[in-house]
Amino acid sequence: MTTPLDTLVLGAADVAEVVRTVGRNELLDLLIERLRTRCVEHSAGTTEVRARDGFRYDKPDLGLVEWMPTHEAGGPVVVKMVGYHPGNPVQRDLPSVIATSSMWDTDNGHLMALADATLLTALRTGAASALATEALAIDGPITLGIVGLGAQAVTQLHAISRVRPIDRVIALDTAADVAATFAERVTFCGVPVEVVDSSAADSIAAEVDVLCTCTSVDIDAGPVIGDVAPRPGLHVNAVGADFPGKLELPGALLADAFVVPDITDQCVLEGECQQIPRTSIGPELADIVRNQPEHRSRRNDVTVFDSTGWAVEDDVALRLLVELAETSGIGRRIPIEYLSTDPYDPYAPPR
Amino acid sequence: MTTPLDTLVLGAADVAEVVRTVGRNELLDLLIERLRTRCVEHSAGTTEVRARDGFRYDKPDLGLVEWMPTHEAGGPVVVKMVGYHPGNPVQRDLPSVIATSSMWDTDNGHLMALADATLLTALRTGAASALATEALAIDGPITLGIVGLGAQAVTQLHAISRVRPIDRVIALDTAADVAATFAERVTFCGVPVEVVDSSAADSIAAEVDVLCTCTSVDIDAGPVIGDVAPRPGLHVNAVGADFPGKLELPGALLADAFVVPDITDQCVLEGECQQIPRTSIGPELADIVRNQPEHRSRRNDVTVFDSTGWAVEDDVALRLLVELAETSGIGRRIPIEYLSTDPYDPYAPPR
Repeated sequence: MTTPLDTLVLGAADVAEVVRTVGRNELLDLLIERLRTRCVEHSAGTTEVRARDGFRYDKPDLGLVEWMPTHEAGGPVVVKMVGYHPGNPVQRDLPSVIATSSMWDTDNGHLMALADATLLTALRTGAASALATEALAIDGPITLGIVGLGAQAVTQLHAISRVRPIDRVIALDTAADVAATFAERVTFCGVPVEVVDSSAADSIAAEVDVLCTCTSVDIDAGPVIGDVAPRPGLHVNAVGADFPGKLELPGALLADAFVVPDITDQCVLEGECQQIPRTSIGPELADIVRNQPEHRSRRNDVTVFDSTGWAVEDDVALRLLVELAETSGIGRRIPIEYLSTDPYDPYAPPR
Repeated sequence: MTTPLDTLVLGAADVAEVVRTVGRNELLDLLIERLRTRCVEHSAGTTEVRARDGFRYDKPDLGLVEWMPTHEAGGPVVVKMVGYHPGNPVQRDLPSVIATSSMWDTDNGHLMALADATLLTALRTGAASALATEALAIDGPITLGIVGLGAQAVTQLHAISRVRPIDRVIALDTAADVAATFAERVTFCGVPVEVVDSSAADSIAAEVDVLCTCTSVDIDAGPVIGDVAPRPGLHVNAVGADFPGKLELPGALLADAFVVPDITDQCVLEGECQQIPRTSIGPELADIVRNQPEHRSRRNDVTVFDSTGWAVEDDVALRLLVELAETSGIGRRIPIEYLSTDPYDPYAPPR
């Protein structure tokens, strides 16, 4: 028996083809649906998630390469590798987040798939905000605020538009050139977008029903919105904080809100939960999704989803991408691992 | 500026071509040389190594998928992913260790290269034993013992043959079919090999000058050699222990030996150093290589190299492979990451 064990490689063109073949809305709906199901079924007893870890350096600007491994019993091991280089867009015309995800067969340790996860990361971060919004925001139609209009803002708006009718979007960014192109980038969402001066961040919490913060704010430079009395029922998806000292929300807003972390242990280190005592932190996203009826009354409260990125989201996203690619025959299979024809002779020719 | 950022993929056929092009001896000599230099230059202040971590499962047999990340300041981030499934050779005709290594650019977070590391792992484990043997074994010609004749045994013998003249090899394995093919697998090393009955493990420490243990012994089933008075000047490369409870050497041998770990923190958890107090552990491999003259008198003592696998070895091996492949134009470049033409629009077409 010498089964060929190739690796499915899904590169940039393959991911683009999956999006084209499936459709943007349908793909995001599928991802939201899969993540919803996974939240409902999630058990810490059968899913291991390692705390995100990585190497940070200053050259002289901040850069990070991190890994996010997870393993659901009976499923593959999935590891997302993420580069975060906030200087990329301006200095290198590259996204600040560049990522790849890989999947290992736990029967034999074989690398089953390697795929771009740059688009997937934006999509799954959107899908997570969609689930939090679905559970915790007013029914709508809503006014949506977006602070920080980079790549994540596109998928935040797109994802929220899949779970709530939106009658108005108020969007702003401190970089005028980034703000200038936002409306065009989200035309496909079919919602009216008003790009406003960045000073509107001061009072935005009082103006909107749902707010997404997705900035690349520097460490110790937050918050990115003003400390005003929030609109009753405001739901915030705080997406940008993902590093010690990196914060987007005023402490007072958090202190009075029902705060839902994606993973508590990570949020207290890297998320908005750095600002509040552990005893003030609410249940995790998966609990909220699983027990939606119980939390229905929270739609009238001020709520915050502290989204630092949950490896299970990446697992769900990669498995969906691989499934869709395989269904459509997209991607190439490459024998990457040197599996020699004699398992006891590493120099024997590869099979 | 839209620089194309492809990923160099070095698959099984590419690695085989590099070995063919460069030559087995020349490749291993180069790797030993590079690792020697890196040991001499190594500083914990400029190289970060994360403790190996991973997911372990029993389905019902033991399996592991692990990651080994490292970052030398100024260099790339290198992460080796390793699957260890000891049932692979017998049940699946696959190597027990299957690995891939990846390299990230710390300027922008881009995945520069992905390569098989299955052969590299065997080679770098051999290279580490060669450096330990070069520093700590008698000058030779030596009698070499090998316990466990799987894939690692091939590169252990090959590597040691590059640093010491060998006039006799005594080799054994508890699996007769594995033992039966060993001599043929190492013919290329050009040294005389006697494959003996596995009962010879009882006294092998008294019979040889250098001993390599490279078994897949089960947890709590060790040691794999007898507790006899070792030959004066014996040097042992203990390669198999890499998991809590997995041990190859008798405690008494360790207690009386000068024990050199590859990484102390990992060896006390997973290596032979589990059996001795931390105060009895000697300097690490890099220190021994750096300060060889100082340790020259150790050649007459009983010494043990506790080799659990050092991520820096994988870094050196991957960088060498990539360099050799690029020199010879081997491998293919694939745009894996979805780097959209607009860094602020994740849905924009990939460049």
